[in-house]
Amino acid sequence: MKVKVAFQGERGAFSEQAGYAFFGDRMIPIALHSFEEVFKSVKKGDVDYGVIPIENSLYGSIHQNYDLLQRHNVYIVGEVKLRIKHYLLANYGVRMSDVKKIYSHPQALAQCEDFLKKLKGVEIIPTYDTAGSAKMIKEKKILDGAAIAGKQAGKYYGLKTLKSGIENHEKNFTRFLILSKRKIIARKNPKTSIIFTTKNIPGALFSALGVFAYRYINLLKIESRPIIGQPWRYMFYLDFEGSIEDEICADAISELKKMTQYYKFLGTYEKGREVE
Amino acid sequence: MKVKVAFQGERGAFSEQAGYAFFGDRMIPIALHSFEEVFKSVKKGDVDYGVIPIENSLYGSIHQNYDLLQRHNVYIVGEVKLRIKHYLLANYGVRMSDVKKIYSHPQALAQCEDFLKKLKGVEIIPTYDTAGSAKMIKEKKILDGAAIAGKQAGKYYGLKTLKSGIENHEKNFTRFLILSKRKIIARKNPKTSIIFTTKNIPGALFSALGVFAYRYINLLKIESRPIIGQPWRYMFYLDFEGSIEDEICADAISELKKMTQYYKFLGTYEKGREVE
Repeated sequence: MKVKVAFQGERGAFSEQAGYAFFGDRMIPIALHSFEEVFKSVKKGDVDYGVIPIENSLYGSIHQNYDLLQRHNVYIVGEVKLRIKHYLLANYGVRMSDVKKIYSHPQALAQCEDFLKKLKGVEIIPTYDTAGSAKMIKEKKILDGAAIAGKQAGKYYGLKTLKSGIENHEKNFTRFLILSKRKIIARKNPKTSIIFTTKNIPGALFSALGVFAYRYINLLKIESRPIIGQPWRYMFYLDFEGSIEDEICADAISELKKMTQYYKFLGTYEKGREVE
Repeated sequence: MKVKVAFQGERGAFSEQAGYAFFGDRMIPIALHSFEEVFKSVKKGDVDYGVIPIENSLYGSIHQNYDLLQRHNVYIVGEVKLRIKHYLLANYGVRMSDVKKIYSHPQALAQCEDFLKKLKGVEIIPTYDTAGSAKMIKEKKILDGAAIAGKQAGKYYGLKTLKSGIENHEKNFTRFLILSKRKIIARKNPKTSIIFTTKNIPGALFSALGVFAYRYINLLKIESRPIIGQPWRYMFYLDFEGSIEDEICADAISELKKMTQYYKFLGTYEKGREVE
């Protein structure tokens, strides 16, 4: 059965690639302009799922999406850890020696700095988007330039790979979350994400983490975000191993709730594999 | 005695304003292009101090500066919590009814959205900088437009305030840190910032926070950042109440060091006041 999957960006974006890694050929990709539109279209049921990036292993968290997870009632139902592999893409017929201009998003350009530094007489041109650069060289039939983007962009716009794996760091992964308006609890290799705020007393965070530590529940990530209107107080996003339906985790959460001012369950989902 | 103080941005920036709030008239402002240049000029001794924004109470941390604190050997020696109050600034002679265009950085425009929505027939034009917009309307002698920027920008460029406090949220503060290459331990109302990584075992963060909790040392903030080259492992930045020279804190740190793979002291400095 086909599923409609929304993501932010141009067709061929890394988010689309993450979607295909998760859903395979069942996926009907729906490209939207903003992360907020992805959340809204999942909530309204216009699409079956959404895919959003949540953190990069070199640059850290995408905070806008943390904030949107708190504000919108959607569930996390899956995870993908996509290796961010950059490709130098060009129209068919263009050779490496023809390339006088290279287009991409500033962050992708920075990630490929070592490769770009070695090129002589090539102009580096920042653009709004990686997949958008691939689209542009295709549409404008550019024959003296190339774009830096992901594999999916090359495939979608029918471009040739001049060079692959041109990023500085090979351990460059982005973790993506799969969103649904239905709560679906994973049974296999589960992890759980929650949000909470502690009471404003010394040792509050320590006590909150204690409900997990005393039960040997492994914490995978903690992220703090400001509480709006209460300067210098924070909300905590926690990822831990296990399912909300495990007795031991359910126990931990019921103890945690007694210590918190605010608590929200985001989802229990299968731990993501690392994919290319 | 005069002190040279570096900050990122155009003259009149909020960072400059934070510098004046801390140093008063002793400050000789040095405007630089990037945060990294601020760190480098402090380290090289080209300036006496640097001022950098570290977090905003509505939008969260400025991660680039967290990463720079880890990479550069400078100390935090002070803190300022600046109320981000936006002013609608124009050349003298321009009245509110003359304003057909408003220029500012996209984030400042977003922060003043409620005010801007009420205006009729005014074009909103995003620019690269708040103080830079003030500079531009002054230099180009624009008579049908205004800029949104801070008080310091109005003062520096000699502009008139058409309206003040036009931001949506009055609890909009940015916390700035004062950097020095000399370690100076504050005695009055001290707080301390450190960085550490835990060993990769369950309960490691909980145990690390325990060295503070068991001593009733109050944690003020925790921030996690990725460890480069080790996907899904994190470095923790911790702010706590007290001085590194207090026996109880020194004790806690010596216990913490036994549990960590990496530890760095960033500074003990006086807790910042909230200023306008």
